[in-house]
Amino acid sequence: MAAPVIEADAVVIGAGPVGLFQVFQLGLHEVQAHVIDALPYAGGQCMELYADKPIYDIPGTPVTTGRGLTQSLLQQIAPFQAQMHFSQLVESVNRLDDGRLCLVTDAGTTFITKALIVAAGVGAFVPRKPAIPALEAFEGRQVHYLHDRALADGSFADSHVVVLGGDESAVVAALEAAQPSGNARGPASVTLIHRRDVFAGEPDTLQLLESARAAGKVRVLAAQVTGCVTASDQLKALQVLTAEGTETSVTADHVLVRLGMSPKMGPIAEWGWTLERKQVPVNTENFQSEIPGIFAVGDINFYPGKRKLILSGFHEATLAAFGAMAFISPEKKVHLQYTTTSPRLHQLLGVGTQEKS
Amino acid sequence: MAAPVIEADAVVIGAGPVGLFQVFQLGLHEVQAHVIDALPYAGGQCMELYADKPIYDIPGTPVTTGRGLTQSLLQQIAPFQAQMHFSQLVESVNRLDDGRLCLVTDAGTTFITKALIVAAGVGAFVPRKPAIPALEAFEGRQVHYLHDRALADGSFADSHVVVLGGDESAVVAALEAAQPSGNARGPASVTLIHRRDVFAGEPDTLQLLESARAAGKVRVLAAQVTGCVTASDQLKALQVLTAEGTETSVTADHVLVRLGMSPKMGPIAEWGWTLERKQVPVNTENFQSEIPGIFAVGDINFYPGKRKLILSGFHEATLAAFGAMAFISPEKKVHLQYTTTSPRLHQLLGVGTQEKS
Ligand SMILES: Cc1cc2nc3c(=O)[nH]c(=O)nc-3n(C[C@H](O)[C@H](O)[C@H](O)COP(=O)(O)OP(=O)(O)OC[C@H]3O[C@@H](n4cnc5c(N)ncnc54)[C@H](O)[C@@H]3O)c2cc1C
Ligand SMILES: Cc1cc2nc3c(=O)[nH]c(=O)nc-3n(C[C@H](O)[C@H](O)[C@H](O)COP(=O)(O)OP(=O)(O)OC[C@H]3O[C@@H](n4cnc5c(N)ncnc54)[C@H](O)[C@@H]3O)c2cc1C
Repeated sequence: MAAPVIEADAVVIGAGPVGLFQVFQLGLHEVQAHVIDALPYAGGQCMELYADKPIYDIPGTPVTTGRGLTQSLLQQIAPFQAQMHFSQLVESVNRLDDGRLCLVTDAGTTFITKALIVAAGVGAFVPRKPAIPALEAFEGRQVHYLHDRALADGSFADSHVVVLGGDESAVVAALEAAQPSGNARGPASVTLIHRRDVFAGEPDTLQLLESARAAGKVRVLAAQVTGCVTASDQLKALQVLTAEGTETSVTADHVLVRLGMSPKMGPIAEWGWTLERKQVPVNTENFQSEIPGIFAVGDINFYPGKRKLILSGFHEATLAAFGAMAFISPEKKVHLQYTTTSPRLHQLLGVGTQEKS
Repeated sequence: MAAPVIEADAVVIGAGPVGLFQVFQLGLHEVQAHVIDALPYAGGQCMELYADKPIYDIPGTPVTTGRGLTQSLLQQIAPFQAQMHFSQLVESVNRLDDGRLCLVTDAGTTFITKALIVAAGVGAFVPRKPAIPALEAFEGRQVHYLHDRALADGSFADSHVVVLGGDESAVVAALEAAQPSGNARGPASVTLIHRRDVFAGEPDTLQLLESARAAGKVRVLAAQVTGCVTASDQLKALQVLTAEGTETSVTADHVLVRLGMSPKMGPIAEWGWTLERKQVPVNTENFQSEIPGIFAVGDINFYPGKRKLILSGFHEATLAAFGAMAFISPEKKVHLQYTTTSPRLHQLLGVGTQEKS
């Protein structure tokens, strides 16, 4: 099967708050954007780092949360029907002979675009890994991260499953492994390892964990992973140091890593520009980088006076949309229209134009 | 009585959306701002030109109105208790020997401030005048604009009152003139002149007008004012051309002008800077003008890429607040704090700091 190739007018890297608002501003120029994010959902730092904390400095919104802001932005941009490509990391960007830009993701998708807007924040959110380098050799086979594409129903039949982590996603992974869906055979054992016997999550989820522990379906071990036991290119067990100070090993056919996500700059640093403080230098007229056709908005960019604030990203995305039009429709004359008064924008937004009084 | 002199750290000219958000950003730096506006209320263009029209491009707010946005901003900035000075036009700005700036308004108030942020939009909203130059001589005595300070209860006793205009404020003025409050004596007559016998306003208000007309308390004349009749330095009557094409005159002891407001750049053009397209050139690092200590944000400023959008003004006001701190507290090290996480900002905002989970 040939790897998919998607041709686009505009690709946005990053579905954080700024990437989302970029969709809106491109939409006002009648451009439908493709958005790529390493995370399986929109929101970037807002969802990943403070989904349920209140935020007070979104102008005109006295208080919301990271999640609330993300939802409002998704609602606001809905009329423009952006194509979202989640759980994909953009690995390379190259210029084609015809001047367009070619992006390739770790899912093997290729995007060919006239304009690229990088809204990559502080980097791609990727799963935190346990500090056991020897485990890397088993990734995708016996060591699994969130949204591992290789895992199917029944993968854990008769296996010893170990889950690493202490938050809701770790607890859910343990419960799901212990209770396979459909008529798949269950695992031989499920062990949830976390440094303390304290877990974060919704009360319902924690209640289910209590029941599963009482029924002997999930074992909880308060311990730190210190190493692993391998044989014939197979992972056999994890070595751990328990909270009581005992060294022991836990049989492991599959390890589900749920240690949270952290942002990594990753490949962006090598796309042919000179970074300043790990940020992409841009001009403040249209937030174009030194590479023609590549714009950078939000936390990822740098210019004199730059502050890493969401409201600044909103402004940057707006001017970048005007700048990107020179690459998308060079012949089209772009001018500012007000959303309050423009019948054309009302049509695009799918709202009725009010009669003039 | 000596004219009032107010000493301040920061004065903001303009209570439009950008001036309001400027208060918020100064507040996060622990600076309490004074805000001056020619209008009697906050909101600038949003309130004056599209209070009840929907607006769709405030980021994170899929839809609101000019009025809704103004109210949200007022709620958001409430913790910072800005001093609002309404119905005053800033007429002059000068530098004092100690480096501070001295502003004088047409109400005679003097402000002495370390930093000035001009958020003057497309100019001060001032009442539209009828195109009869001879009427100017009677302003404040017999010709009255919105919020005329000279008018007291009973000013119209036994007088012939003429109201000019066709919107809600004109209708309300006619009704109020016809029905003086308390036991003030009523007028001899009230005539409401508008080019057509069609008025805009709330249904209740228009209903009251119908009743007043039926009761003979308000006469409506569909006509255009073409001139005036004066004698012994007194205004005696207005000359009008009726919708039917008849020239006639209407006795007038008092004329209440309610022809709406329109923005006038006015004195700002003469404050010692070179304007570009009637806008104040600024740098994009902190939105300072060429005059040290004077910043310009929102529709009034100009820089390459400038678009007259509210969301751009929000960004500009944020960076201007950082810039203004160099004049307000030069010794203080300013750094970015997040409203989500900073206990100090939570204290300033009057909200509880969440426990770290
Ligand atoms: C605890 C905390 C509190 C904060 N509080 C505030 C506050 O009160 N006010 C405020 O204005 N700001 C606050 N911020 C900052 C704010 O969250 C950021 O400014 C904002 O998230 C930046 O948005 P963005 O869209 O530029 O980037 P991000 O939100 O970082 O989103 C970038 C997205 O791009 C994706 N990505 C990056 N590289 C790639 C790649 N190569 N391939 C695929 N996807 C990629 C990432 O996975 C991510 O989802 C806070 C931040 C934190 C951590
Ligand atoms: C019909 C219409 C529709 C619009 N639609 C949109 C839209 O959809 N999206 C968008 O982003 N923008 C829109 N705008 C533009 C938006 O309203 C302006 O960008 C915004 O109001 C600018 O805010 P501001 O605070 O800079 O200035 P303003 O709103 O103009 O406020 C400036 C204030 O300063 C006061 N002032 C000025 N000079 C003085 C002085 N010397 N002394 C005292 N007071 C003074 C004025 O009285 C005024 O109240 C629209 C504008 C109009 C007219």
